[in-house]
Amino acid sequence: MLLNMRLVDEIIQTALKEDIGTGDVTTMSTIPPDVTTTGFIYAKDDGVIAGLLVAERVFTNLSSEIEFHARVQDGDRVGRGDVLATVSGPARAILTGERVALNLLQRMSGIATRTAHIAELLTYYNTMVVDTRKTTPGLRVLEKYAVKIGGGKNHRFGLYDAVLIKDNHIKVAGGIKKAVAMARGSAPHTMKIEVEVENLDGVREALEARADIIMLDNMDFTAVKDAVRMINGQARVEVSGGINEDNVVEYAKAGVDLISMGGLTHSVRALDISLDVGEIK
Amino acid sequence: MLLNMRLVDEIIQTALKEDIGTGDVTTMSTIPPDVTTTGFIYAKDDGVIAGLLVAERVFTNLSSEIEFHARVQDGDRVGRGDVLATVSGPARAILTGERVALNLLQRMSGIATRTAHIAELLTYYNTMVVDTRKTTPGLRVLEKYAVKIGGGKNHRFGLYDAVLIKDNHIKVAGGIKKAVAMARGSAPHTMKIEVEVENLDGVREALEARADIIMLDNMDFTAVKDAVRMINGQARVEVSGGINEDNVVEYAKAGVDLISMGGLTHSVRALDISLDVGEIK
Amino acid sequence: MLLNMRLVDEIIQTALKEDIGTGDVTTMSTIPPDVTTTGFIYAKDDGVIAGLLVAERVFTNLSSEIEFHARVQDGDRVGRGDVLATVSGPARAILTGERVALNLLQRMSGIATRTAHIAELLTYYNTMVVDTRKTTPGLRVLEKYAVKIGGGKNHRFGLYDAVLIKDNHIKVAGGIKKAVAMARGSAPHTMKIEVEVENLDGVREALEARADIIMLDNMDFTAVKDAVRMINGQARVEVSGGINEDNVVEYAKAGVDLISMGGLTHSVRALDISLDVGEIK
Amino acid sequence: MLLNMRLVDEIIQTALKEDIGTGDVTTMSTIPPDVTTTGFIYAKDDGVIAGLLVAERVFTNLSSEIEFHARVQDGDRVGRGDVLATVSGPARAILTGERVALNLLQRMSGIATRTAHIAELLTYYNTMVVDTRKTTPGLRVLEKYAVKIGGGKNHRFGLYDAVLIKDNHIKVAGGIKKAVAMARGSAPHTMKIEVEVENLDGVREALEARADIIMLDNMDFTAVKDAVRMINGQARVEVSGGINEDNVVEYAKAGVDLISMGGLTHSVRALDISLDVGEIK
Amino acid sequence: MLLNMRLVDEIIQTALKEDIGTGDVTTMSTIPPDVTTTGFIYAKDDGVIAGLLVAERVFTNLSSEIEFHARVQDGDRVGRGDVLATVSGPARAILTGERVALNLLQRMSGIATRTAHIAELLTYYNTMVVDTRKTTPGLRVLEKYAVKIGGGKNHRFGLYDAVLIKDNHIKVAGGIKKAVAMARGSAPHTMKIEVEVENLDGVREALEARADIIMLDNMDFTAVKDAVRMINGQARVEVSGGINEDNVVEYAKAGVDLISMGGLTHSVRALDISLDVGEIK
Amino acid sequence: MLLNMRLVDEIIQTALKEDIGTGDVTTMSTIPPDVTTTGFIYAKDDGVIAGLLVAERVFTNLSSEIEFHARVQDGDRVGRGDVLATVSGPARAILTGERVALNLLQRMSGIATRTAHIAELLTYYNTMVVDTRKTTPGLRVLEKYAVKIGGGKNHRFGLYDAVLIKDNHIKVAGGIKKAVAMARGSAPHTMKIEVEVENLDGVREALEARADIIMLDNMDFTAVKDAVRMINGQARVEVSGGINEDNVVEYAKAGVDLISMGGLTHSVRALDISLDVGEIK
Repeated sequence: MLLNMRLVDEIIQTALKEDIGTGDVTTMSTIPPDVTTTGFIYAKDDGVIAGLLVAERVFTNLSSEIEFHARVQDGDRVGRGDVLATVSGPARAILTGERVALNLLQRMSGIATRTAHIAELLTYYNTMVVDTRKTTPGLRVLEKYAVKIGGGKNHRFGLYDAVLIKDNHIKVAGGIKKAVAMARGSAPHTMKIEVEVENLDGVREALEARADIIMLDNMDFTAVKDAVRMINGQARVEVSGGINEDNVVEYAKAGVDLISMGGLTHSVRALDISLDVGEIK
Repeated sequence: MLLNMRLVDEIIQTALKEDIGTGDVTTMSTIPPDVTTTGFIYAKDDGVIAGLLVAERVFTNLSSEIEFHARVQDGDRVGRGDVLATVSGPARAILTGERVALNLLQRMSGIATRTAHIAELLTYYNTMVVDTRKTTPGLRVLEKYAVKIGGGKNHRFGLYDAVLIKDNHIKVAGGIKKAVAMARGSAPHTMKIEVEVENLDGVREALEARADIIMLDNMDFTAVKDAVRMINGQARVEVSGGINEDNVVEYAKAGVDLISMGGLTHSVRALDISLDVGEIK
Repeated sequence: MLLNMRLVDEIIQTALKEDIGTGDVTTMSTIPPDVTTTGFIYAKDDGVIAGLLVAERVFTNLSSEIEFHARVQDGDRVGRGDVLATVSGPARAILTGERVALNLLQRMSGIATRTAHIAELLTYYNTMVVDTRKTTPGLRVLEKYAVKIGGGKNHRFGLYDAVLIKDNHIKVAGGIKKAVAMARGSAPHTMKIEVEVENLDGVREALEARADIIMLDNMDFTAVKDAVRMINGQARVEVSGGINEDNVVEYAKAGVDLISMGGLTHSVRALDISLDVGEIK
Repeated sequence: MLLNMRLVDEIIQTALKEDIGTGDVTTMSTIPPDVTTTGFIYAKDDGVIAGLLVAERVFTNLSSEIEFHARVQDGDRVGRGDVLATVSGPARAILTGERVALNLLQRMSGIATRTAHIAELLTYYNTMVVDTRKTTPGLRVLEKYAVKIGGGKNHRFGLYDAVLIKDNHIKVAGGIKKAVAMARGSAPHTMKIEVEVENLDGVREALEARADIIMLDNMDFTAVKDAVRMINGQARVEVSGGINEDNVVEYAKAGVDLISMGGLTHSVRALDISLDVGEIK
Repeated sequence: MLLNMRLVDEIIQTALKEDIGTGDVTTMSTIPPDVTTTGFIYAKDDGVIAGLLVAERVFTNLSSEIEFHARVQDGDRVGRGDVLATVSGPARAILTGERVALNLLQRMSGIATRTAHIAELLTYYNTMVVDTRKTTPGLRVLEKYAVKIGGGKNHRFGLYDAVLIKDNHIKVAGGIKKAVAMARGSAPHTMKIEVEVENLDGVREALEARADIIMLDNMDFTAVKDAVRMINGQARVEVSGGINEDNVVEYAKAGVDLISMGGLTHSVRALDISLDVGEIK
Repeated sequence: MLLNMRLVDEIIQTALKEDIGTGDVTTMSTIPPDVTTTGFIYAKDDGVIAGLLVAERVFTNLSSEIEFHARVQDGDRVGRGDVLATVSGPARAILTGERVALNLLQRMSGIATRTAHIAELLTYYNTMVVDTRKTTPGLRVLEKYAVKIGGGKNHRFGLYDAVLIKDNHIKVAGGIKKAVAMARGSAPHTMKIEVEVENLDGVREALEARADIIMLDNMDFTAVKDAVRMINGQARVEVSGGINEDNVVEYAKAGVDLISMGGLTHSVRALDISLDVGEIK
């Protein structure tokens, strides 16, 4: 597991508090405290699963008597109707936790599914798909984990763990070279410095500034190919902007190292997953 | 504004902490503290805007010297290239807050845009589109607000503010009537009682139990029409499951009061919105 | 148990932090860490018990080695001298937790005792005693639970889970009908709408606005009787204001559905309960 | 003001969160955001006021545009109908904050009123009435402040700021002398050491152990008088247990320094206070 | 253990969050989750150990599978190379927790070591070394515990648990007598009153005001001796300011009761302690 | 300012809560609320100042009426007696905040002072002094800022923002090459990879694994010189372990890029700084 479970538990606490508030009036009034049952979590669509441990902890956070048995693993590809896990124990905990567990599992699996699709397209190329900071506020660690499970690579986790000098920084700072020099003087020596450029002049400046990574932002194929040739291994090359299932292979062919896609996390289609108690519909 | 700003601020605090961590190394090293600038927030696609006040508070949370001027209002329909707002003040605060502000604004506007599309389809019917609890964990108040801005109606906010007896409750409790009676005895008299049913037998039982609202879950058109006729005003009628842009009008024609759609919030396509400093690209 | 134990634990954490601060200097200095003992929790007055599980968790929060054995149940009527529970384990945890456990148990039992007295008076009437929002800030879930244990019914839990249009809202909004219409348009369809009125004109307006519940505030017997007749089952009827042990039956006879009493929670007489180690004095 | 306003604000935040939750649906739907009004806070019974600043901060926490004008001061004696304060500004903030503000003000004023009554009875004696740790969990700083405003003196604030060796400690530790010696060796030299005793033997032991304060717990008048004579100024004398309005003067006459009464805070009768907008009923 | 473990756990949580953030990228990527190992914690210098339980809880907070075996006890004197404890279990938890555990243990042991040195110098005198409020913000309970383990005594824990009227208070309040009288009237009767004075006039005033403790601040030997004679047992005598290993015995000979030294906690030399897995270097 | 002020405020809140607790009994009882005064903050020793803005916010957190005027800037070298700042406003806020403000300012200035001394020794070399993770738990951002103010460079901020493969990782992972390969595959591409080695074989392995930075841990001069020659610019070179004022220049002469010293933060000698009201002693 590549997740910091302390952060996961914080997210779960927030989610449960948001949903349960002063109490689940339906469950507390209709289900006696000593009734136990088993819930089946199953897929209603095809996809790649991510977040089973997260779903498990939603339930175990609600009751220490819950037994959760995963039947597949994160990263597994499943089909419609497959049972992903069973959750047994106090019926109250299962019914109260169901929605939060599914909300998280569906979102994470949706991200893993889409990432896996992109990664598959890139199988025969030395190019990785990477995520961005366009994640859902509050859920970044879960979403970046899902990208990784889907076969993608993570970009920086936030503003604090890498230098990425973007268009707006360059405008305000007064040029690429100046910005890179300032960053190098101030940031820890353990961080790489990435620069976002929009054309070949930018590439040239970034190379002269000795950037570790150059991000080609919204540049067309021809320009990207020229840039890769110009960079020639002196920095890692990342492309970004307007890339999707249809054109991703073209960029890979152009020889870039990394393709970052905000849509992996900002426009998620949740994987359809349900929980039924007693039997599967 | 129909938002509890205290909760909004908590969400923003969490989001900023997640993104900024120990500090925005890029901005702190490349932008001097006394530089000021103006950022233009503009649409790169057509849609309905929601969350301008939320975006504003991201920036004002970072610096008390920020001036935020909205040029449109929540609920306004905008087109590609329209400037939504300007944000002026310390360049550091603008660059550091940009991503969190856009992440929230894009998601909320995406939800409002889709809801507005559905609501428009329902214009000539006495049927409302409503949201569900399939929201992003931690962001429910924002997402339900966006649904409202888009012209939808909110369902309950959580497990604590209404009774909704679902399939799993009925199975464990041992029948609709028993479950409704227990809920009525225990829940505050101020809450309505809704029952989810899957067929006409369920409708009949729910009516006998005097449910306030009956949710027809995954029932086909014919069954829905029969149910509406059977209910005949004795309860409000909600349909749920498998409803989308293509069939929503059919359900409205069947005479239901409410159509709930999880996809409004669980599978959002973010509206494309950017921030540029100095000038608009 | 109809309590959300997560909220209970938060209350207990706050209470323990308030009382213990940097440490219980008396107990830490006079009692060695390995000494164990048994404390007897017993009633020093007659009443109805509520909160045993809350008391238990105070001690188990302080030490995982505590054994708590309840000898009565919440809702039981006890007499002076009755042992309610024994608590065995590390003497330090018992002595340090004693005051917080008793403070909560005494208050909750005081509320249950008074509510039970009122509920008993209403035994032969179709009228329920209900609580209000005049609870102790921070302890509402405990106090509303105690009302329920005493045989009362809960009103809404807060400003978020029901619409209650009061005198001040009506004045500012410009009339009952307008206020009800606005609330109906905006609030979730799952919430009932209650209106507070002060005279028969108000009742008439509330009926025309189709309020779900009408609260007769500070109206005299004659007016209440007239109101009940006028409402005639079209809405549920609640009375409030100036009601106590002496006149509660009169209101019940008048045919109201609900009688709300702030004094159940805002003017509590704690039930006298003590803890003695080793033996009972 | 003798209150730590940081703690007061934490209490207010908790109280507002408890009451408002996801939002005040009534006020947000019936009152437009730009409406302003004035509320009059007035007494409906006679008593001593405590907590005006606390009430003020409830409203100013909700809106920075609130103007709060106190017409009396904490400690003032007021009569039925007296206006205590006016609160002007956004109607939403006034209506949403009303209940929390009154809940706190009524409770604190109830405590101040009862304490003032006891303090008045003790006017001509060198005896002070003091509070205990039998306060409402979470509200101790407010309740101890109210006792002080009513003319009482505060006992220790918690388990951390003084040594009070009680009956149960003595039993477990194995005697008064041993317990006092251990406490003296371990506690900071800045804390006094108080011992609770139940008879004259206990007094003698406590004197030999050189306790700073001796608490006579549940001892009858004769024993108390003998104890005072025996102590003879070598320690301060506190009595506790079974003391009320009827017998408090007798204890004062017996020459004790301090009389502690749990009932000042555990069995409060809230002072009746209301808020009306626009005019006073 | 004289530590409130609830506060210790809060400190550990803060420390782990600070160090781990979104995750220990090195350990998570290089160490598989199922690898177990044993780490040896050993001294690289001579000193007195304090904080073993704190170190243990760092690891057990990270994994419930950790086994921690202390080979020495808090307060033991150890030499270079001595193994203090072994920690066995998941290698990830051991490597991730190592730094936080050592940071706390080294600091606490550094404080205990220096305190023990001072205490030893005072062995044959009726004088105790005490700490001050010059502790590391956030770590006071740990540092005061370490002083105690080293053989020192604790002064007050904060501004809330004793009255200490210092130079600046006296200047603003207008004199010692006035300040003491105000404090006596307002503070709980359970707190002692200490006054800081700078010369014999101050001592005289403090005695007349009947201060419980008199602190001689930055007074020379002669003055201290005169002060002790003048006080003559009517108050406890504390000296402070400019005291160190070289002159502490002189002050003890002068007959003071307490010597407070800020340097015990504000200028700590951490005791050198390491953790090696598998074997000891 | 290179500090994230949100984190600074959290530290200050924690520190004030720790020190003030339920209230500053001395100040609240001896100083009336409306008294104002001016405090002078001055150095009692020579050194480099860091943390003036932190000290300022301690006071402004306590009262919005505080005026703080810095007379020197962070990074300035000051001498005994120099006034660093004046703080004017409510005497209560000044006296209550004094200790926390000084505790932070003294520690930060102590760190800056020592770092500046080392940095000065390195003036004529291409070698930087850097900090470590051996910081005070909870205060890392302040201490790393102080190192920077003193002229040092920051190493990584925590376990989350760089890969540093240490001795213990290598042992458990089974060799340098394997560990580096795993880290490269899993960590974000934006992070550099540093490897700690103990001899020339380790250097060779690290070079073959293409580590970005090689840390020579506890190696003697000769070995360090050989290592620098072997590395020859293929990686940055850091030395660590047993380095101090006496030998730091030797290491610089050996041609290393970075010298990390735990003692900069784990064994701080606070700079002596005081606050006097009204006048400077």
